[in-house]
This record gives sequence, C-alpha cells and structure tokens, in this order.
Amino acid sequence: MSRFFSERYSSLVPYTPGEQPKNMEYVKLNTNESPYPPSKGVYEAVKKEAERLHLYSDPQASVITEKIANRYGVSREQVLVTNGSDEVLNFAFMAYGSDKKEMLFADITYGFYTVFAELNGVKYREVPLKDDFSIDVNDYIAKDTTIVIANPNAPTGKALPRSEIEKIIASNPNNVVIVDEAYVDFGAESCVELVNKYENLLVTMTFSKSRSMAGARIGFGIGSRAIINDLNTIKYSTNPYNVNRMSQIAGAQAIDDDQYYMDNAKEIIKTREYTKKELESLGFTVLDSCANFIFAKTDKISGKDLYLELKKRGVLVRHFDKEKITDFNRITIGTKSQMDIFLSKTKEILEA
Amino acid sequence: MSRFFSERYSSLVPYTPGEQPKNMEYVKLNTNESPYPPSKGVYEAVKKEAERLHLYSDPQASVITEKIANRYGVSREQVLVTNGSDEVLNFAFMAYGSDKKEMLFADITYGFYTVFAELNGVKYREVPLKDDFSIDVNDYIAKDTTIVIANPNAPTGKALPRSEIEKIIASNPNNVVIVDEAYVDFGAESCVELVNKYENLLVTMTFSKSRSMAGARIGFGIGSRAIINDLNTIKYSTNPYNVNRMSQIAGAQAIDDDQYYMDNAKEIIKTREYTKKELESLGFTVLDSCANFIFAKTDKISGKDLYLELKKRGVLVRHFDKEKITDFNRITIGTKSQMDIFLSKTKEILEA
Repeated sequence: MSRFFSERYSSLVPYTPGEQPKNMEYVKLNTNESPYPPSKGVYEAVKKEAERLHLYSDPQASVITEKIANRYGVSREQVLVTNGSDEVLNFAFMAYGSDKKEMLFADITYGFYTVFAELNGVKYREVPLKDDFSIDVNDYIAKDTTIVIANPNAPTGKALPRSEIEKIIASNPNNVVIVDEAYVDFGAESCVELVNKYENLLVTMTFSKSRSMAGARIGFGIGSRAIINDLNTIKYSTNPYNVNRMSQIAGAQAIDDDQYYMDNAKEIIKTREYTKKELESLGFTVLDSCANFIFAKTDKISGKDLYLELKKRGVLVRHFDKEKITDFNRITIGTKSQMDIFLSKTKEILEA
Repeated sequence: MSRFFSERYSSLVPYTPGEQPKNMEYVKLNTNESPYPPSKGVYEAVKKEAERLHLYSDPQASVITEKIANRYGVSREQVLVTNGSDEVLNFAFMAYGSDKKEMLFADITYGFYTVFAELNGVKYREVPLKDDFSIDVNDYIAKDTTIVIANPNAPTGKALPRSEIEKIIASNPNNVVIVDEAYVDFGAESCVELVNKYENLLVTMTFSKSRSMAGARIGFGIGSRAIINDLNTIKYSTNPYNVNRMSQIAGAQAIDDDQYYMDNAKEIIKTREYTKKELESLGFTVLDSCANFIFAKTDKISGKDLYLELKKRGVLVRHFDKEKITDFNRITIGTKSQMDIFLSKTKEILEA
C-alpha cells in the first residue's frame, strides 16, 4: 500500500478469483467455466469486428441489448449490458445499498457480495443458511431492506423455486430484491418473467457460464425501466464505454446461436447427475445442484487435503477456507471425459 | 429514476460521450478516434483467441502488462491494465480523492474528472486556465493535495513540457499527481520516465487514440509499485476480470506492432499541422495542439452554429456547451482526405 492511499479503501480485503495457473495444463474444474467453446459464428464475427476497433464501441450496446430483450421478452429499456455480471452487481450495490439499513444475503453465497458491500460502504448482514445448506425464505420476508439472492446459490448449487422468491419480492415492495441468476440455465427457474409484475426486482445474468464466454466479460441486468435507468446513471458516471466492440458482437452472435448453448447446458446437466451418482457411490455427500458445479464432501479425507491431492494429480477444484464449508469442494462440471479423470483421481486418492 | 435509488447517486450528472449516430455515415471528427484501423496481426490474433472465450481472461493480464512494461522501461509491478483509461482514472479518484481536501484540476479539461469526483464524493476545485488556454503551473505548486493534469490537455490540445510538470510533482511530495497522457503520442513529452524518481506520480495512458483501439477498451496506469498496488486493491474489489481476453491479446499484438502505430501518429501530426494552416487561412484562431485534434474558433460563425451546419453536411465535430469555450469546436484529425472534406464544408458554410 502507498502512504497516499485513501483510508476508506485501505482495509479492503479484495475478492480472490479462482486460481488460473500458467505453469502446467490442469483439468480445470475450479472456476465454473463451460467446457465447450463458443459457437463457430462467433470467431468470424469477432475477426471482422477487429477491423473497426479504432472506433469506440456503442455505449448503449444497442445490438446485443436488443437481442437480449427479445430473448427474454422484455423491452430494451429494461436491459443493461455490463463488463461481466460483477459490474452490474457492483452498480446495484452502489444504487441500492445503504450505510444505515443492513442489506441481506446468505452467509454462504457468492463471495463477492461482502466485497462489494465493503467497497461501497454498504451495511450488510449475512443470513445463515439452514443446516441442509438451503436458503430459508422466511429470513427474507418483509424485511424492508435490499436483499440479494443467488439462485441457484453458489457454491452450494441449491435453488429455490420461483414461487418462493416471489414471496420475498412481494413482501419487500419498498426495497430492491436482486436475484443473481448466473447459473440459472442449468436447471433453476428464472425470475425474469416477474420483472413486469414487480418494480423492485432486478435479475442479473452472465454469458460466462451457459454461454461459454467467461473470457468475453458480458453480464446483464433485467428489471423495471426505472431500475435500469438508475444503473445507467451509475454506468455513465463510471465507464460509458464499458463493453468493448468484440464482446458486444460475440454476445449478440451467441444469442443468435441460442440453441447451441442451451443444448450444451442440457449436456452439462446430464454430466452433473452422472458425476453426482459416481461420487455418491464413492461415499461422498453431494448437494442437489441446479448449477454447472457440485458441492461435495466425504468423511474419508478433508476438503483441503482432497483439493491439494487432486491438484498434485493435475485436477483443479475449488476449496473455500470458510469454517462452515471447509469439508467441501466445489467441482465444476466439465465434459464427461474430464469428469472421468476427476473421478478416477479421486478414487486413487481415497485408496492411497 | 426509481424510488429505490440511493440519495448518494441520485443527483449525479453523468458524463456525455460524443454522439455516435447510427442513422447515417458521417465524416466522424468528434470523438478523437484514429482514422487508421489496427495493425493486421490483430485480426488473426483476436479470431484465434475467440476459440478460448469459454475460459476466464487472465485477471493479471500478464502478457499485455509485461509488453507495456518493456515498452516503457518499467517493471510489470508498475503497470495496471484497465477497461479503458476511464477505469484507471476512476480507480485513482477512489484511491487518492478525499472528502476533505480539494483535488485540483483545470476548469477546461477532460469533462469526466468532475463526474469521477462527484461519483466518489471527492471534493475538488477547478482551476481556471490562463487566458491563452494554457495551464499555469504556479497554480499547482506546493498545494499539498491530489492533482490531475491532462497533458496534452483536452479539448485545448495544449501541452506542458515535462520539466514544468516535474515541478508540480516535486512540490507535492505527500500527494499523488495524476498525469493523464491519453494524447501524449501526438507530440507531447511523457512523464513516464519520472515514475522511478517520484513515488507520488501516476501516469495514465490509453490504446484508444494513437493505438487505434478505442473499441477494445484498453487503458493503463504506470507508477510506483505501491501506487499500482493500491489500484489493484480497488480493481480486485470491483472487477478482477476487468479486461477481456480479446482486448488483452489485441493490445499485446499492438505493442508488438509499435512502429505501425507510431508512424500513424506522425502522419496525424502532419495532417494536423496542414489542417491548422488551412483553417488559419480561412480566418480561424487555432490553438497550438500536441494532440490528435485541434481546438478552433472564428468570428464569422458561432461555435454551436458551425457544429450544426457541419453536421447537416455530414461532418461531425464536437462542440461543448460551456461558456468559456462556447466559441470553439474540437476537431479530431482524420485522414488528409477527411480533413479536406471538413475544410471544404467549412468554407462552404462561411461563404453561404
């Protein structure tokens, strides 16, 4: 830290992204990426767009915004495209966080929420999950404060039905409920269809998971026009050209090729259920997942040791140094052959 | 605005980007883009990278960071790559702004500085330029506060010699001096060579101007390791994957092709001086510019009217509704043939 650094930020504990080692090739099951590359149309579109890189990107991201709006049945004024969904989440913490009323989210959820809160001086309370690692909807009913629900939740993978989340939204009419649907395409019910019913709902999504574009950094929010207007005020005061030309065109092309990505999501669901069953037959406890990862533990080896042993053998999974979940590892679902490598290495470790 | 929007941001007046009309083809001289496309190597590099978009981008942006470090003769720990230079500037306002001591910058300069200050609750004072639109260095000597100097300045195009800026840096040893060098490659002296001499110096640059990549959104900051460390704390608390894969590879390739871009910059300087002389022969006052634009006025027509008449004729320049500069237009330097169209349309307007 320099001696000039603002006190306001000097005690920040930044988010730790999953490791991205460069020294060797791993079977990389640690950052919830898709094992499938983008659809072919994306490559040529991106190459052609590179010829226009000397011109600024469209600050309104009109083409991709329109396509997302059509895909999800809303108007384009209800969509904001951002530099990854971390950006729309940060904007939402800025717009709807308070230094007086506690924002609520789960104690076990996406680790960035506490960081966004600290960054923006937002008060918050982490609400404990139930013993089975599910969200207790009653903890969020009529709380008169801003709420964030990841659905499906990470790193547990567990999802709430839309009807349960609707109770939360309906009972907090004077505050925004942010539903983070980064993983929704892997089996959960989206709340997007509720945005025209509830003006206090913001749904966030990403192209990083089901749309195979973690490296393009495309996220988006869908909400009422007024909410999207708020977020645009922040965007145009932060970084008006927040999404580059190549990502805008890549994302637009991905929406055109929607079937390819939704088919891949189905394949990942199949592979997930296969992996779950295999792990259970090895004696693991595996939470029911609606995401492209599973959260699993076993009595036979600690979560940390399994992570380390797998890493030695060329397989990366994600372990969190957090007491309540220290027994677990989060394992991204790759291709079936990647999962077979993971399973055979795990077996090897357990038998050693 | 929604009824949920935080009071802290509800009165923000966002930055207005230069217009990007989609209804017709303009000779676009309004957003200081380069008229030259990126070097050929960029297209293939980007296409190849698109095949890996399902994997997250490198949060450390190692390859491009290393190339920038080598190009500017610093270590990689002294470089931070961001999603456009607006991002590194915003991070710097967060890191070194204060709600007590006034940050100082010119009253006529990049319009985003006041927005960043308002966004982050940073106190600031806009220091009037001299009557000839140059920065009076004495206004910034020994002020014991954070200072931002755009060099060359925008929209004036005027530059200070490095030795003058060094006086400002040396006389404010307990505060950071941010030197915004977005336009430095068009004839000004860079302060980068001072970063190892002054731990309170942060130089920011961009690939949007001389490197023909406004649409790729690549900016960077160069400073002491401690300063870059501060900015990384903010980055990893905001958006760790802030620069997408395609922009990282495009930027890295652009550094490899440095000569192409620096040759283009020389060509733009030549065209700028040609345009200046021609405008002067039409009776315009044109400030001496070290940037890829000129700032010009004439008694024969108001700045606003000239802007509107040019727009009618298919030529876009930038007019600012700000009292002190309302007579002027900022005209980006395009190719010689673009400038000849601009000049002939201007002549036509004056003779009408």
